[in-house]
Amino acid sequence: MLNRGYDGQNCSIARTLEVVGERWTLLIIRDVLLGLRRFDQLQESLGIARNVLTDRLNRLVDEGVLERVLYSERPERYEYQLTKKGLDLNIALTALRQWGDEYLSEKPPRLLRRKVDKMPIVAALVPKGTKTVRADEVEAVDGPAATGSAPRRRSVRSKKQ
Amino acid sequence: MLNRGYDGQNCSIARTLEVVGERWTLLIIRDVLLGLRRFDQLQESLGIARNVLTDRLNRLVDEGVLERVLYSERPERYEYQLTKKGLDLNIALTALRQWGDEYLSEKPPRLLRRKVDKMPIVAALVPKGTKTVRADEVEAVDGPAATGSAPRRRSVRSKKQ
Repeated sequence: MLNRGYDGQNCSIARTLEVVGERWTLLIIRDVLLGLRRFDQLQESLGIARNVLTDRLNRLVDEGVLERVLYSERPERYEYQLTKKGLDLNIALTALRQWGDEYLSEKPPRLLRRKVDKMPIVAALVPKGTKTVRADEVEAVDGPAATGSAPRRRSVRSKKQ
Repeated sequence: MLNRGYDGQNCSIARTLEVVGERWTLLIIRDVLLGLRRFDQLQESLGIARNVLTDRLNRLVDEGVLERVLYSERPERYEYQLTKKGLDLNIALTALRQWGDEYLSEKPPRLLRRKVDKMPIVAALVPKGTKTVRADEVEAVDGPAATGSAPRRRSVRSKKQ
């Protein structure tokens, strides 16, 4: 068993990792940000065991990062949506993506842009008070290295393989 | 055993988590950013088993995130320093800290400011081309909720308990 808990760490990074640091958790949040909202879509995108996905989703709902929303009454079916708290993880996810783009991927599989004017968006350190872009004002689109194996908006399948 | 690998994920976030997503790894990088550079300082700050710390440090050196630098010849002693690649993780760490400050900590244990003018610094989404602050231009200082249990610059012990 993995030793649980960053106990004794008076640190907001450690507390954050308690909530989103488990394996797969940040990739689940990434996929919901990309528009995958249903259990089967997430399971297909991530290729993980259903019990692991169930466990992670329940934890994220308990923590108020995701909420379960009824989308079909008969049969009763729920999808997952990000709360404001969940959406606010977009800065950290964008920063992690950028770092991977810079150092680990040959070309970016995905790019972030502002919805309203398609302006490219980056995560950065800026002085407090700088004009920033809200997490709900941006969208991720395929970059030069996009393939079918990347999670895609609304679970559309690959256009090239 | 934890199933290794986010194989088949054409995604820079998944690739990044392969490098920095293991338990403790991001907290090690946080501590080196805060000025803890020696094995014993890191071990004391994190309170983890020495073999786990050794394993994580070796991995980070192999990945080019940290480098081992000789600081004493007799006895031969090394400390860990962030490379440019490692320093560039500061945006993601700052974003994770901010999220924890906002949603999980009552008051921020630590604040980020620009060294030159003490201006408060935040991680944010901004249009590409916005004037930003480099990772090496900022420093973390104690915030309102700082205590001795938070990792401290240069391993100075608590001023209040």
